[in-house]
Amino acid sequence: MNLTEIDARARFTASRHAYLATVDGAGQPHLVPVTFAVDGGTVLIAIDHKPKRSTDLKRLRNIEANERVSLLVDEYDDDWSKLWWVRADGTARVLTEPADRSGPLRLLAAKYPIYADRVPSGPVISIDIRAWTGWAYGSGNSPGAGSTIA
Amino acid sequence: MNLTEIDARARFTASRHAYLATVDGAGQPHLVPVTFAVDGGTVLIAIDHKPKRSTDLKRLRNIEANERVSLLVDEYDDDWSKLWWVRADGTARVLTEPADRSGPLRLLAAKYPIYADRVPSGPVISIDIRAWTGWAYGSGNSPGAGSTIA
Repeated sequence: MNLTEIDARARFTASRHAYLATVDGAGQPHLVPVTFAVDGGTVLIAIDHKPKRSTDLKRLRNIEANERVSLLVDEYDDDWSKLWWVRADGTARVLTEPADRSGPLRLLAAKYPIYADRVPSGPVISIDIRAWTGWAYGSGNSPGAGSTIA
Repeated sequence: MNLTEIDARARFTASRHAYLATVDGAGQPHLVPVTFAVDGGTVLIAIDHKPKRSTDLKRLRNIEANERVSLLVDEYDDDWSKLWWVRADGTARVLTEPADRSGPLRLLAAKYPIYADRVPSGPVISIDIRAWTGWAYGSGNSPGAGSTIA
């Protein structure tokens, strides 16, 4: 069954990790696991180590070429009745100024204590979410079902 | 540390689920969790229920518009020393003919017994993998580290 936007956003926010899809200038998608924090309608992701240039990391190069990104949070279980997932689609920008990064880094440190001890020194990716959509098992469908949100 | 291609492929093949990123004609990425089987250098994904038209499902419409896709398998743990992930980048096509679907469906049923009882009736997505890349914890980096494979 489809999740409401409120339920989808709550499940996403409470999750510990997500997957980030970006797309390069040639239309090739790129996927990485990420840690994140949610601030209202914005998802925040830190880059731990400062790249030499902001274009040194593929995900940052891709966002520069194409601001459209997608995030997924997923609860998998071989018992498919426990499955659910949430997708967040939005527009990304890269924050490099200390004044822009400090708020997001505080939120990330509150969620991941390791970040409080070892503050990420790289840019922050800030994603304004346009749509929160999700699905939970409940109608006899498997995770690849044609009738899930697509 | 980066995984060898052989290690990356073996970990991917043994995993129970993955994430599929496709891209639409406007460059918007789309993410869904998927079950899959690996046959040599090809990743196979079934659609459970036959859509009315092959373009009814977003992931199929996207592949029609852009054959480039990316898959990710991820082992997450709050103990980051246990983390690893593998990404498979490749080119997708959609198989709709029974003769093309039967081999993939046998492989999927061997991996997921539920598919043996309830054979997927939709198309099969067949993805020729161009690159298997992966990362496992081992050098003090977190999963979002700038020094991981990017």
